[in-house]
Amino acid sequence: MAVPSTPVLKDELDIVIPTIRNLDFLEMWRPFFQPYHLIIVQDGDPSRVIKVPDGFDYELYNRNDINKILGPKANCISFKDSACRCFGYMVSKKKYIYTIDDDCFVAKNPSGEEINALEQHIKNLLSPSTPFFFNTLYDPYREGADFVRGYPFSLREGVPTAVSHGLWLNIPDYDAPTQLVKPLERNTRYVDAVMTVPKGTLFPLCGMNLAFNRELIGPAMYFGLMGDGQPIGRYDDMWAGWCTKVICDHLGLGVKTGLPYIWHSKASNPFVNLKKEYKGIYWQEELIPFFQSVTLSKDCTTVQKCYIELSKQVKAKLGKVDDYFNKLADAMVTWIEAWDELNPSSAK
Amino acid sequence: MAVPSTPVLKDELDIVIPTIRNLDFLEMWRPFFQPYHLIIVQDGDPSRVIKVPDGFDYELYNRNDINKILGPKANCISFKDSACRCFGYMVSKKKYIYTIDDDCFVAKNPSGEEINALEQHIKNLLSPSTPFFFNTLYDPYREGADFVRGYPFSLREGVPTAVSHGLWLNIPDYDAPTQLVKPLERNTRYVDAVMTVPKGTLFPLCGMNLAFNRELIGPAMYFGLMGDGQPIGRYDDMWAGWCTKVICDHLGLGVKTGLPYIWHSKASNPFVNLKKEYKGIYWQEELIPFFQSVTLSKDCTTVQKCYIELSKQVKAKLGKVDDYFNKLADAMVTWIEAWDELNPSSAK
Repeated sequence: MAVPSTPVLKDELDIVIPTIRNLDFLEMWRPFFQPYHLIIVQDGDPSRVIKVPDGFDYELYNRNDINKILGPKANCISFKDSACRCFGYMVSKKKYIYTIDDDCFVAKNPSGEEINALEQHIKNLLSPSTPFFFNTLYDPYREGADFVRGYPFSLREGVPTAVSHGLWLNIPDYDAPTQLVKPLERNTRYVDAVMTVPKGTLFPLCGMNLAFNRELIGPAMYFGLMGDGQPIGRYDDMWAGWCTKVICDHLGLGVKTGLPYIWHSKASNPFVNLKKEYKGIYWQEELIPFFQSVTLSKDCTTVQKCYIELSKQVKAKLGKVDDYFNKLADAMVTWIEAWDELNPSSAK
Repeated sequence: MAVPSTPVLKDELDIVIPTIRNLDFLEMWRPFFQPYHLIIVQDGDPSRVIKVPDGFDYELYNRNDINKILGPKANCISFKDSACRCFGYMVSKKKYIYTIDDDCFVAKNPSGEEINALEQHIKNLLSPSTPFFFNTLYDPYREGADFVRGYPFSLREGVPTAVSHGLWLNIPDYDAPTQLVKPLERNTRYVDAVMTVPKGTLFPLCGMNLAFNRELIGPAMYFGLMGDGQPIGRYDDMWAGWCTKVICDHLGLGVKTGLPYIWHSKASNPFVNLKKEYKGIYWQEELIPFFQSVTLSKDCTTVQKCYIELSKQVKAKLGKVDDYFNKLADAMVTWIEAWDELNPSSAK
């Protein structure tokens, strides 16, 4: 008789899922997700009933719950946009978070085996990152790999990993213009690598298939103000990624990207996306130089302090790009206040 | 009847091979290399006759030739070390260089097809690089890929690619300590990706399977003073890589790593390697911070000017680590003088 193995980090990881529909997609994930606790953040009409397949252990929050829990501070949580997922990060009491979209299914590796995405994310998070020097054979901690000749020995211990950014087979995460130009492009290339995004380098973080260490970086994983009443959408994860990367670089934490892949089943409507994105596409040309040049003072020794300092710089430097960034900077402060209220032990 | 296609860049690329033995390894490369011109740099005893398989078009230089051509400046070219290969870069009159070690064979991709390494290098060199922002789906210019959502549109043109660094299946390029600890480790993982090494990030460049645009970066590809009469070895390509990367970053040029793979057939002796490396392993801990903090002035508008400026900083900052770096700094200047003598049109 096989001895059942305890899934890794079973009691230390929550799976956060933002949704507006029944969670039938969980059936496919059952072998991998069922041992874990789910935090479902229901977007849109709170009176709608979301069906969750039997056997999953979950808590579910709709807009009424969010308003009740956060009171006036609930205005920092987006509505009618999957950015609302970050509320789940805040109410979790676990060390690790995995978040996935409900149109993402289990992918297969080139040998045809189903990929346990969560297990790979956990591997990524539990092994160090190497942000200070590039290793040409990719993740040096992986079985069968190591640091290559010329890699400084003093840097081989690496640093703690805060973020594991996974990728997508089938529908690639393209912006609306690229979707419009290449409607039939599918990602079929399985790149068998995990790598650290080097210090000082920004990347586009996608929230579709993402894991992070909540204790190390949680308060920076704010998905901003999107959706209902806001001038942009589809920049929620990008915003979180840029803020997070800058803070990880400052605090000496690692960000990985690459494996695991999930199967992204359906492309969102490019015309709708274009409407959500067009201001972001324009503003982004100012955001990137901003994030590339941000420096945080030595006093910023916690994620919260870093994030508050960043919010001030957002107001000072991006407020003139559009008044939206003043509102966003205020919401960043509200987010930290709400985080610390719900997580008093991390607030000191 | 199939129309024979002209190999890409047939008259614009030289293949540089440093060697001390008969070049039987070329038999395996014949389908891919035969159309190209070879520059063979014979190391060691000049009286030895190196056999080159029939049908290859080549020129061969031994130490006597190098001394004759460069006169007293020949002292910048290493002897009894594969670092001598950089003489081949200098005497070439072509725009592109591919250099390969004579213990490297044709690798196979996961489908079992032989990999035309040179063709992949040429693809890498002829498409732009993206050093300013990380693309999570790797090379955005590759068939079936693109820039992902959140990638700034202003950066999508990329920059010219100066260097294409290829990898190795079978024997990985490990330093002596790692070779000693993991004598049986083999690289079996085929990672199907090419990526740009981001601006500001250093990496370990290996000279085993390397291509570059000689017009864009040639004068920085100096492999330093190694081997006979020198206190270190096996840091020739590393040195070239760090100098090159810093200069590419300054001039806005791109460096790629990843595909193509070659099959590296045999591990060098780790005990011999340790003797060559041990000072380098120690010095490297000072070299990396030096290269990470080097800045070149705005007047450095050519590779030559950058390199001379870099040589001054090497003398000023690394001379105190060991007198070797004073000699190396002088040799860097000699190298540029020799380069400009042999390449008068690029000297201005």
